[in-house]
Formats: sequence, structure tokens, C-alpha cells
Amino acid sequence: MDLFKKSWFTEVYDMSPGMCLSIEIDKVLHHEVTKYQDILLLETKNCGRALVLDGIIQCTEFDEFSYQEMISFLPLCCHPDPKKVLIVGGGDGGVAREVVKHPSVELVDQVEIDGRVIDLCKEYLPSMAVGFTHPKLKLHVADGFAFVRNRLHNYDVIITDSSDPVGPAVPLFQLEYFQLLRNALKPGGIICSQASNPWSKTKEYADVYKICKQLFPSVGFAYTSVPTYPNGIIGFALGSLNKQTNFKEPIGVFKEEELSSMKMKYYNEDVHQAAFSLPNFIRQALKES
Amino acid sequence: MDLFKKSWFTEVYDMSPGMCLSIEIDKVLHHEVTKYQDILLLETKNCGRALVLDGIIQCTEFDEFSYQEMISFLPLCCHPDPKKVLIVGGGDGGVAREVVKHPSVELVDQVEIDGRVIDLCKEYLPSMAVGFTHPKLKLHVADGFAFVRNRLHNYDVIITDSSDPVGPAVPLFQLEYFQLLRNALKPGGIICSQASNPWSKTKEYADVYKICKQLFPSVGFAYTSVPTYPNGIIGFALGSLNKQTNFKEPIGVFKEEELSSMKMKYYNEDVHQAAFSLPNFIRQALKES
Repeated sequence: MDLFKKSWFTEVYDMSPGMCLSIEIDKVLHHEVTKYQDILLLETKNCGRALVLDGIIQCTEFDEFSYQEMISFLPLCCHPDPKKVLIVGGGDGGVAREVVKHPSVELVDQVEIDGRVIDLCKEYLPSMAVGFTHPKLKLHVADGFAFVRNRLHNYDVIITDSSDPVGPAVPLFQLEYFQLLRNALKPGGIICSQASNPWSKTKEYADVYKICKQLFPSVGFAYTSVPTYPNGIIGFALGSLNKQTNFKEPIGVFKEEELSSMKMKYYNEDVHQAAFSLPNFIRQALKES
Repeated sequence: MDLFKKSWFTEVYDMSPGMCLSIEIDKVLHHEVTKYQDILLLETKNCGRALVLDGIIQCTEFDEFSYQEMISFLPLCCHPDPKKVLIVGGGDGGVAREVVKHPSVELVDQVEIDGRVIDLCKEYLPSMAVGFTHPKLKLHVADGFAFVRNRLHNYDVIITDSSDPVGPAVPLFQLEYFQLLRNALKPGGIICSQASNPWSKTKEYADVYKICKQLFPSVGFAYTSVPTYPNGIIGFALGSLNKQTNFKEPIGVFKEEELSSMKMKYYNEDVHQAAFSLPNFIRQALKES
């Protein structure tokens, strides 16, 4: 299939079998194949600029804020004092942009395997890559798996902003990786990972839940609406070493004026609580996992 | 563009400009043009059967339950005793299937303009059209607008399950129609209409809010995740003649066993509350409307 036919980019993807999203494009800004992946930067007609890795849309300027704000503030607002944060992946810079906004955060380590993604996002997606310029952030171009292995009891919050559980990112959805994350947390620490698509990949979503339940005394499963992701949705898996953590009730609550001055376009206390409210078919899948 | 190229049906649609969804199909079950619209029934590869009107996906067996359950139970569960219900549109029968489940409901009038949609859904979509067989239901093949005009102070709940605010359905999103709905309600009555796509059509969503605010002492705005709708989401506008109605807090709460025996795959008290939790960019649009 000609993926660029008539200026539409089409994502054909196993994450939503039998369904695919197409985005109208004005221009291919850049295309390059690195040691790790195929990188494509697009100027779209109605979704701003988009980053595509191995043919899969990672983010568009139209809707990225939902994902970036939620994967960052769901865990940050459930920790009483998140001073030190690790971001695994997140080469576009959007998660870093959000994490540094939290007033408690003092230091953010970020480990991204592909330096070219970072360079290209700095060039073509400055609205996200602005995250890389913050003085709280220390950027490491390295393998996340190896990096986490060597950071024992180091972080209050660890966010895994990876691609989906197909191909190279599969290990980031497996038990061993979550064990490493747990070991890299300080007492009471919290992890948050993207957890696949709860509609078409309900079983995969439930599998991550099963792993988290094995490793963390408190777990939370959430999702948010992101139109350019498969099925228009993405799941999040959260785990806390503090068994008192109730993920649905944020500890850190920001007032409307604070959210506004932090330029939060999506996150607020209401959507935090709502993100953990699961439909019956998802509840059922988690119960059976 | 050949919409059936390589067995994919593609929806090119102004409701999510610059984005379009394609669904892999096994077979065209039926295609017919009536006085009102182009009707297409598809056997898809992974989404079960689908109803398409004028090129727009109305429902697929994969995800229809989210929409049908939510548009029905959000208003029903906010009314203390919803005995008499009107459904405008809803030719596939899915909303009727849900509404008759509610134990308070005694009588349901449904008015659908196109009798052929009903016939074809009975033939090809029995999982939805089962709603038409219930003894509580009285089906009228007529124009919804005219029907509502003649029913003063008649209903506890009115649900408008229409197509989107483009073409023939535009009047169902305008002031005059909402005035008719208000007049057709009994004291304390509640309306619920689908209200467009809050991501790409934020302004249109806010416009419906503005109309509801003019007419009802209590209003609620909600949304739910439906993967095969534009942007994977659909909005709902609710209005109540009872100024005490707090849409976010359902009055009628069903226990888990009740929901299970009612075969509810999506709706529960948590998702009810969550549906009214709006992201900041939508809150802002409603405020400015």
C-alpha cells in the first residue's frame, strides 16, 4: 500500500487490528534511518507537526498534551514529594517539558536510546523539545534497561515513555523491566508506564496489570484520550511502593490558576480521578488476569 | 479516492479534519440508497458488523456498547424515576436495547425517520435491533422534529441518537430543536443528545452547551471513548428541568451484580462520574461559549 498516496500518511498497525488512521500531510520534513529505527517528521495539514517512528505515530502537536501531561502528572500528583524523577524514553522532550513543571521536582534524569530522535525533535518539534532545555534535566543517550539496572533506590518517580509493546519495546512491558524499575525506586516511590491500548489490546493491558500486582503493594490502571493513537486511547500502568497510595485520589492538587500558569491544557484533579474509572469490560479483563 | 481499495473502507469526514479512519472489510452485506440516505452494511474483519450512513460509520459491533450504554444510562440514572422515555433517531436499535433495561422504564417511544434503516438492522445487526422487540417499546417511523412538536410535557427522559451535525442532522443541534425537547419533557425531565466531537470540533461542542445553558436550569457535558468515531470520542449534552440535578452524581446506582445481569459492558457509577470530568481545553471552550 502506498502510505503517502494523495498526501495522506497511513499507519497500518497491529495495535488496532483491522483499523487504521490516516493523517493528511503537507510535507515530509525529514526522513532518516538510524541504528535503532526509521524516523519521520511530518508537517500535517490539521494536526501540526508529527513524529513517526517505524511507521507509528508517536505524537502530533494537535493532541500530544493529553498523553504528556497525564503520564507525568498522574504519578507526580500521587507522590507526597517527588524530588527526583527518571524518564525512560521520551525522545521528543514532551514528558520532560511536563515533569519539570512540578514544583517539588528538583532533578530529572532522562535516558533515551536514540540521540537522533532528540536532535531531530530539537530541530523540528521545538514545542516539545523545549523540555530538554530546562536546568532541572540531565539527559543521557543510553539504553534505558542498562541505565535503570545501575540506579538502585534512586528515584521518587520513574516514567516510561516508550513506544508500544511490539518489536524493540517489548522488553519494557515485561516482568524483568518492572523489577528493575522497582529496585531503582526510593522507599514510597512510584512508577508510571504507558500500557498499550485497552480496547483492541485488552489482554496486553491486563498482562501489564498482572505484572504490576506482583511487584507493587498498590497499583493503578488508567487511560486517556489521544485521537492519533490506536483506538483514540492509551493506557497507563502505575505502581507504588507505598501501600497507602490511592492512585485515584491525588495528594498534590493544583488550583485552577496554578494549572493555568503551568500551561496545563488537559490535566486537572477531575481528569486525574476520571482516568482511573474503568469500564466494565476492562475491569473484567483485569480481574481475570 | 477509492474507498474500498484493498478491502478497506475509509471514512473521509469533516468531523475530524485531516484525519480519517479505515476499517478492513470482509464483505459488503448490503448497499441501498433511500429517500433519506445512503445505507451500507459491512462485515468487517475485526470490528464485527458495521452500519454506515452517507459514508459515516454509525456503529460497529466492536465498540457500539460504549456509546449506546452511555447515551442511555447517563440521563436515566440522573432521573429519580424515569418511567416514560423518548428516543429520537437510533435506527439501529442499540439505544432502545439499553433503555428498556432500566427497571423504572415503563414505556419507550422511538421515532426514526428512515424505516429502511430499521428493517436492515433487524436483518443484519440483530445484536442491536433486538431493542426493537421489547414490549416496552413503541416504534414510530416519522420525522423526529414533527413528532416532538406534538408531545407536550410527555416524557421523563428524551435521548437524541442522531448522526453528526453535518447535512440533514444539523437542525438537531440547534436552538429550536432543544426548545421542542424542553417542551416535551414532564417537570423534572432530562434530555441527552450526542454533542459532536470535543477534540476536533470543540467549538461545535461548546455551541451545544451554550444552547443547553439557555434552556435548562441544570446542564451537564460528558464524553465517552468510541474507537470508530472521529478522534475516538463522542460528546454528550445533558439538560435537566430540575435545577437540583447534579449530573456527575447519579441518583440511580446499580450494584456490580445488577450491571452484570443487565449485560452492561461499559457503564458503571465510576465511568458515569468520569464522563463529566472535562480536560482544561474543553472547560475553557465551554467557559468562552
